Amino acid sequence: MIDDHSYLLGTWRGEGRGDYPTIDAFTYTETITFTAIPGKPFFRYEQKTVSPEGTPMHTEVGFLRSPADGQLEFVLAQPTGQTELLHGHVEDGDGGAVLVFEDSDVVNSRSAKQVDATTRTYTVDLAGETLTTTFDMAAVGEPLQRHLTSVLQRVD
Amino acid sequence: MIDDHSYLLGTWRGEGRGDYPTIDAFTYTETITFTAIPGKPFFRYEQKTVSPEGTPMHTEVGFLRSPADGQLEFVLAQPTGQTELLHGHVEDGDGGAVLVFEDSDVVNSRSAKQVDATTRTYTVDLAGETLTTTFDMAAVGEPLQRHLTSVLQRVD
Repeated sequence: MIDDHSYLLGTWRGEGRGDYPTIDAFTYTETITFTAIPGKPFFRYEQKTVSPEGTPMHTEVGFLRSPADGQLEFVLAQPTGQTELLHGHVEDGDGGAVLVFEDSDVVNSRSAKQVDATTRTYTVDLAGETLTTTFDMAAVGEPLQRHLTSVLQRVD
Repeated sequence: MIDDHSYLLGTWRGEGRGDYPTIDAFTYTETITFTAIPGKPFFRYEQKTVSPEGTPMHTEVGFLRSPADGQLEFVLAQPTGQTELLHGHVEDGDGGAVLVFEDSDVVNSRSAKQVDATTRTYTVDLAGETLTTTFDMAAVGEPLQRHLTSVLQRVD
């Protein structure tokens, strides 16, 4: 079933913006890669961001699964000390697709800042070869709200 | 603090053996890579196994953190649908170190086989440049028991 989402495969890069009540707003350049492994029912996922000066910022890794038609599972590890298991679904977009993850199960390590819940969307505009991402987060006592938005182009 | 564990950095490869009451025993070739990211307080981790015939079997990715002296946090994503957050500590070995992870918090996706708990050890013999791994698992109704053992040599 994961083959149905082969439009994600490749490397995407572009600019993003982050904000949260507890920090100053910031911008970044983001690279996302989805990779297929022959014969395996999942895509490997890797994300990296760098500051406008080119300094490494965030990174995360994991796997995207699609166990049944239209259903998605996103299994993620965060270097900030969280695991993030997301369930979602695919919606038809305007000539593309929208991956919506509204259900999260986040586990925080003992030394990590507390993240309670996350939601994500990945909107693929196949005509424009554009991947738009949003990331909402409830963390450090704040309610669920937009933390990150990015607009990426396929580069590979 | 993660710099204290730089003996892990690099690529390790060798042979492993798996067993569990619900499956036939099997062997595999395993490659583990720990990578440092300049200025970041964690190592990136990636593991891959292939069958004796060279077919991809398991893979997992994540991050190793050491928030305080001797303390370890291992944040992992599994393509089989689990996130795995492990807490552990370092013991002095005979000329090396033993990383012991005895405390796990596993989350299973809705479509995954049920894994309840895991423990791991990574024994680094610095003299021999050998990394020995064990992986115990309580899953699909079976009690915690040895599932995997491998002995790897540094190759890079």
